[in-house]
Amino acid sequence: MDPNASGLAQRLAEADQSHLLQFWSELSPAEQAELTRELQGMDFKEINGFFKNAMETSSSSKQEKMDTRMEPVPREVLGSVTRDRECLKDWELAGLQCISQSKVAVLLLAGGQGTRLGVSYPKGMYDVGLPSHKTLFQIQAERILKLQQLAEQKHKTKCCVPWYIMTSGRTMESTKDFFSRHNYFGLEKNNVVFFQQGMLPAMDYNGKIILESKGKLSMAPDGNGGLYRALGNQGIIDDMERRGVEFIHVYCVDNILVKVADPAFVGFCVQKGADCGAKVVEKTNPTEAVGVVCKVDGRYQVVEYSEITLATAEKRSADGRLMFNAGNVANHFFSFSFLRDIVQKHEPQLQHHVAQKKIPHVDAKGQLIKPDKPNGIKMEKFVFDIFQFAKTFVVYEVLREDEFSPLKNADSQDGKDTPTTARHALMSLHHRWVLNAGGHFIDENGRRVPAIPSLKDGTDLPIKCEISPVVSYGGEGLEELVKGREFHPTLMIDENGVHELVKNGV
Amino acid sequence: MDPNASGLAQRLAEADQSHLLQFWSELSPAEQAELTRELQGMDFKEINGFFKNAMETSSSSKQEKMDTRMEPVPREVLGSVTRDRECLKDWELAGLQCISQSKVAVLLLAGGQGTRLGVSYPKGMYDVGLPSHKTLFQIQAERILKLQQLAEQKHKTKCCVPWYIMTSGRTMESTKDFFSRHNYFGLEKNNVVFFQQGMLPAMDYNGKIILESKGKLSMAPDGNGGLYRALGNQGIIDDMERRGVEFIHVYCVDNILVKVADPAFVGFCVQKGADCGAKVVEKTNPTEAVGVVCKVDGRYQVVEYSEITLATAEKRSADGRLMFNAGNVANHFFSFSFLRDIVQKHEPQLQHHVAQKKIPHVDAKGQLIKPDKPNGIKMEKFVFDIFQFAKTFVVYEVLREDEFSPLKNADSQDGKDTPTTARHALMSLHHRWVLNAGGHFIDENGRRVPAIPSLKDGTDLPIKCEISPVVSYGGEGLEELVKGREFHPTLMIDENGVHELVKNGV
Repeated sequence: MDPNASGLAQRLAEADQSHLLQFWSELSPAEQAELTRELQGMDFKEINGFFKNAMETSSSSKQEKMDTRMEPVPREVLGSVTRDRECLKDWELAGLQCISQSKVAVLLLAGGQGTRLGVSYPKGMYDVGLPSHKTLFQIQAERILKLQQLAEQKHKTKCCVPWYIMTSGRTMESTKDFFSRHNYFGLEKNNVVFFQQGMLPAMDYNGKIILESKGKLSMAPDGNGGLYRALGNQGIIDDMERRGVEFIHVYCVDNILVKVADPAFVGFCVQKGADCGAKVVEKTNPTEAVGVVCKVDGRYQVVEYSEITLATAEKRSADGRLMFNAGNVANHFFSFSFLRDIVQKHEPQLQHHVAQKKIPHVDAKGQLIKPDKPNGIKMEKFVFDIFQFAKTFVVYEVLREDEFSPLKNADSQDGKDTPTTARHALMSLHHRWVLNAGGHFIDENGRRVPAIPSLKDGTDLPIKCEISPVVSYGGEGLEELVKGREFHPTLMIDENGVHELVKNGV
Repeated sequence: MDPNASGLAQRLAEADQSHLLQFWSELSPAEQAELTRELQGMDFKEINGFFKNAMETSSSSKQEKMDTRMEPVPREVLGSVTRDRECLKDWELAGLQCISQSKVAVLLLAGGQGTRLGVSYPKGMYDVGLPSHKTLFQIQAERILKLQQLAEQKHKTKCCVPWYIMTSGRTMESTKDFFSRHNYFGLEKNNVVFFQQGMLPAMDYNGKIILESKGKLSMAPDGNGGLYRALGNQGIIDDMERRGVEFIHVYCVDNILVKVADPAFVGFCVQKGADCGAKVVEKTNPTEAVGVVCKVDGRYQVVEYSEITLATAEKRSADGRLMFNAGNVANHFFSFSFLRDIVQKHEPQLQHHVAQKKIPHVDAKGQLIKPDKPNGIKMEKFVFDIFQFAKTFVVYEVLREDEFSPLKNADSQDGKDTPTTARHALMSLHHRWVLNAGGHFIDENGRRVPAIPSLKDGTDLPIKCEISPVVSYGGEGLEELVKGREFHPTLMIDENGVHELVKNGV
């Protein structure tokens, strides 16, 4: 176990990381064993290389401004639910057919912890306070279930949408346990495949790995772009191939409105012969904090909002829209062969991005320091870093109010992307589904409530209405349940039928 | 004083309003005198007529749905700051010329009390918490001042933009007093003209006037459309004619970003030969609670969000935009001759709208009742009711983030249109002005802050930056002050120059 005997000390010295053993003699045997185990699993030469490349890329990109190199997404690679309405049905049918042939998989990025949300468990386990109290995981699982059913009904054939769930070292056990306790929400256990993204140490500005305690390194997941490495080293690509998966929909766990394996999106990408596609929402305010999909030096990428000047953010096309308005919502389409090429060929070319952070660490005396300004970096790859390798890249524009409401922060005054905004977004969507299927809502005096609720009291309180995904994936199939009927909120439509919940009696 | 002797009792009996005297014998002589005074000033026959017409209109319009009769604003009557950028400069010059010739007046609708805002004084006196702590009235006054100055500099001639301020019985004294105490914020006293809109009694559903106490009627202002009657009976139309006013910009007090007498808007309307114009912002979400300017049965009007079905709200044009997207922001242009015709000819044709309200009242025993559901109506005319009479109506589309942030509600969680949102909207605009003039902001570590602030903590905290209207009306003239310079927030630019405010030292 002695680091000198095992050659560990030597390896650390060669990588200029010997300080990691500075408290060795103060550690208990168990702590020594744990630290040894952790260090032995690490490739310091590789990590030092990551650091060097990431720092170089980060400082050089700051020099040459992005602005002059950016071009907007050309109209011919864009599909839009508002501008190409006549194609929507076709795309949806094409996607549903692929699903019925078990060619479509979904891949969930769920490696993050709910730190900003203020919880210590994986975000997918969060209950935003819907009438049903369903978690994000359950909502997504039920959408997959329903989609399989719709495809099977349409094509009279059994099918399966495998669900790959990427966790991190920190969320793996609790995530698997949660699914197991809930019986995989009705999905087949062996069609839900968990895998784990890698971790990387935090480093100080001189490239030294940071100790968060005397015997423990400060580790963090390697970004959602850690996906590609994990897909390879955990056998996921092989699993996909075995199952005959041809198209993959990748998304983040935090979007309560996410249309998993969205048939229209899949169908659009397939019909366009795309190897890579991004779902976007229109950015309408120049200073909205969202990354935009665009071309840079002729290749597609996401340019983060912090990278562009106001002048570029404010540029407009002749039609008055913002020129760079393809707001990234972390919903991507990949063909299997593209994804396999990425994993097998291109992954090593992806540079890590540098995120400057305040990283708690021990000082030379072993005392814990919580810095009040950034003292080091975390290195992350991003899931969209691979757009540059696409041969046929397409962009699919959807409506924000129908498809995008991420859960990021805890509830607070003027909070954005909170449990409240997520809950309201879902109930507002389901309210609209009921109205469009011919149903009506009435208030406590029996009067019909206008379609657009009044905001006179300054708070946006939508009609309380929730429709289980097992009843409707995207608003379909509701007419027979609601047409011509009047409902008092709270309205629930689920596997037990249509029912109104009495107040305080949820 | 005896109501029988004076004929008042008789008049009330004829109008079926005798219940107003039911507590007469219980009133003190002073209360009797006050009630007599109030009742003698009222034309009950007219009020009963208002009630009858308003109730009929309100019930009939509910029957026949608005949806089938609505048409969008045609492109040829639309001017847009995003789609007609090549014309903007021309319009602005044209407007500025009219201003320099003292042909332009502004008319402020300030009759409302800040009830929803939770204050007992006129909204214009509210301080939203800017670094300068200026009130809405002061901001608007200084914009008028600056505009006069810009017009004078450009055209080398003295000019004046008279400011007509409509208050109500409840806000007149405090408003006048506030202006007087602040020396009219630098404007000439006789160019600030106050006048008062009318009041109407609240009525129950049977047309009986409601008593709010034994000797007092429940009265409320007659809506911002009460403007037209007041313009006539308080001699304002005559005052405008005397001054040679040819064009009037009408707006509401609560919009902190309002461009009073906006030269581009005025110039656009004048160049189009319009007698009536509406400034709008694009409605982008179908369920946003905003009225839309459109044609109904061939005539322009504002259709309120509560009047349309979801299907109509969701309709889209071929370009993907909402078909009914001309969101009303209560900023209107009228030619003087149009306004005079309205006042002299059309005003009596305008129907009152019915607003169902919970109206506190006394019961048969004189006990105060606070109802928990609507028990009666208030009758209101709306300022936009006169669009139907326009011969040449135009619509001018501007950017919400540049021009519209109304103050309606007190600060509260998820609150819309609050002091916080108003303050942030103004500071965000001024931040963009500084960036576009070549200035930069740096953080406490001396690093440049990205143009688009990060929202990672979930709260939208803009860079603190305020530019006095006396320095810049719309972002002009800042280059010489900020170009190439770096600033720590809070940045203040005012008549004393460019200065940074130290923290906690405002």
